[in-house]
Amino acid sequence: MSEESSGNIRKVEVVPSPALFPVYFENPNCIVVVIDVFRATSAICAAFESGIESLIPVATMDEAIAYKEKGFLVGAERNAEIVPGFDFGNSPLGFKDGQFKGETLVLTTTNGTKAVEVAKPASKVVIGAFTNFSAVCEYIEKEDKDVLLLCAGWKGRFNLEDTLFAGAVVKKISQNLRFTDLSDSSIAARQMYASAEGDLFGFLGESSHRKRLSRMNMEEDIIYCLTLDQSNIVPVLKGDKIWSDQSL
Amino acid sequence: MSEESSGNIRKVEVVPSPALFPVYFENPNCIVVVIDVFRATSAICAAFESGIESLIPVATMDEAIAYKEKGFLVGAERNAEIVPGFDFGNSPLGFKDGQFKGETLVLTTTNGTKAVEVAKPASKVVIGAFTNFSAVCEYIEKEDKDVLLLCAGWKGRFNLEDTLFAGAVVKKISQNLRFTDLSDSSIAARQMYASAEGDLFGFLGESSHRKRLSRMNMEEDIIYCLTLDQSNIVPVLKGDKIWSDQSL
Repeated sequence: MSEESSGNIRKVEVVPSPALFPVYFENPNCIVVVIDVFRATSAICAAFESGIESLIPVATMDEAIAYKEKGFLVGAERNAEIVPGFDFGNSPLGFKDGQFKGETLVLTTTNGTKAVEVAKPASKVVIGAFTNFSAVCEYIEKEDKDVLLLCAGWKGRFNLEDTLFAGAVVKKISQNLRFTDLSDSSIAARQMYASAEGDLFGFLGESSHRKRLSRMNMEEDIIYCLTLDQSNIVPVLKGDKIWSDQSL
Repeated sequence: MSEESSGNIRKVEVVPSPALFPVYFENPNCIVVVIDVFRATSAICAAFESGIESLIPVATMDEAIAYKEKGFLVGAERNAEIVPGFDFGNSPLGFKDGQFKGETLVLTTTNGTKAVEVAKPASKVVIGAFTNFSAVCEYIEKEDKDVLLLCAGWKGRFNLEDTLFAGAVVKKISQNLRFTDLSDSSIAARQMYASAEGDLFGFLGESSHRKRLSRMNMEEDIIYCLTLDQSNIVPVLKGDKIWSDQSL
C-alpha cells in the first residue's frame, strides 16, 4: 500500500466530500490537495500572498476560542459569515491590504479547515484554489506520489465549484503521461471542467453556494475566487501549521 | 422536516455514494431511487420482468447464507462474480429464461443491496436502472415527495454509470416545473448525462467498472444494462421485500 510509485503511473482521484476521504485514502504516501474554492482555500492562498508567515487551521470553534484566549489572531467563519468577536473570516479580499504581514494566523471555517483536518494522515497536504492553480499543478508534478483532490464541499455534500477546480487539475496534469490512472470521479470532474472552462462564472450560476454568496452580496469574492493564478505560492501543511512552499 | 410538499417545488438530489446517504437524508418523507446500473438494479428489474413474485435484498453474506439454509433461492455476488454455492449472481441475462417465475428470491451484491439497506429509513424506496428508466421517472412524478437518487457506486466510491443514470432522471423530471430545486450534485449529473446521452457505451469506455466487467467478458451484460426501457415495472421496497409496483 505505501510503496513508492517512482516512475510508475500515478493514480489521480477526486474525493467528492471529506466524508468519503476514508474510502479513498488507501495509500498514505499520497499528496492531498484540499479544495474549498468558496472561500477557505482561496482565502488561505490570499493570506500567504499578502505575506503572512504561517496559518494554523482548526476544525472546531472550541479550538479557535482557545487560540484567541492565548492571544493569537483568529479568523472564524460559519455559514459564510464572520463569527462575531473574531478578527477575520474567509473572504480572500480581507487580506489584500497586507495587514497581517509576518503574522501567524489561526482559522476555522465551515468546510475547508475541517477538510484539512481529515487529510492530516496523508504524507503531504497542500492547499489549492483557482488563484494558485498553476503553482499547485507544478507542485503535484514534482512530487512522486498518488494524488487525492479533496473537495471540501458543503457540510458533507458534493459541490460544483470544488469539483470544477479538481477537474481543472485533472485536465492539466493528465496531459502528463504519468498521471493517467484516473478514477471515475476524476473522469467526471475533468469532463465537467471541460464543459465549463470558457465561463466558470456562468456555469456556477445555478450552484447552491454561488447563490448563497450572491444573496450575501459577495459577488466580488466570487469573481476573485474564480480568477486563475493570482499567486505562485503553494501553502503546505507541516505538522499542525500551514506554510508557504517558498519558505520551507 | 417531514412536512408534505404537496404542490410545492420538490427537491431533487443525487447522492454520490451510500456513505453520504446520512448527509443527504434530511426529509424522511422522500422517495429514494436506488441505482446500481452494473448490475444489481438492472438484474432486479430483469428478475421482475421475468415474472418473479418478490425479492429480498440482503446486505451481508451471513444473511444470504441464513436464507439459503432455510431453503430459499439465493443469489450472491461479490466483486462481479457469483459466490460459489449460490443459485445465481447479478447478471440480468441470468433471468431471461423465466426459470424463477413466481418465486421469491434473495439477493446480496457488492454494492446494490447495501444501498437498499441504507435507504430503508425513507418513506418510499424504488429500484432504478436504464432498463426501466421511463417507468421510474413516471413513478417519481406521481409521488408527492422530494427525490434522492442514490448511487450505489463501488465500495463507497463515486462511479460514472450510476451518476449517468441519475443525471438522465434529473434531466427528464426537471422538465416538469415541480422538480426544479436541484442540488449541485443533480446539476453536475444532468450535465454529465447531457454530454454522454448520444453514446453511453463510448462515454463509459474509460470507467473503472466497465473496464472491470470487460476484462471478465461481460460486454453482453453491459450492453443490456445500458439499453433503455426494457421493462415497465418499478420494483418497490415494502418492509424487507421488493415487489413489482404492478402487484401492489
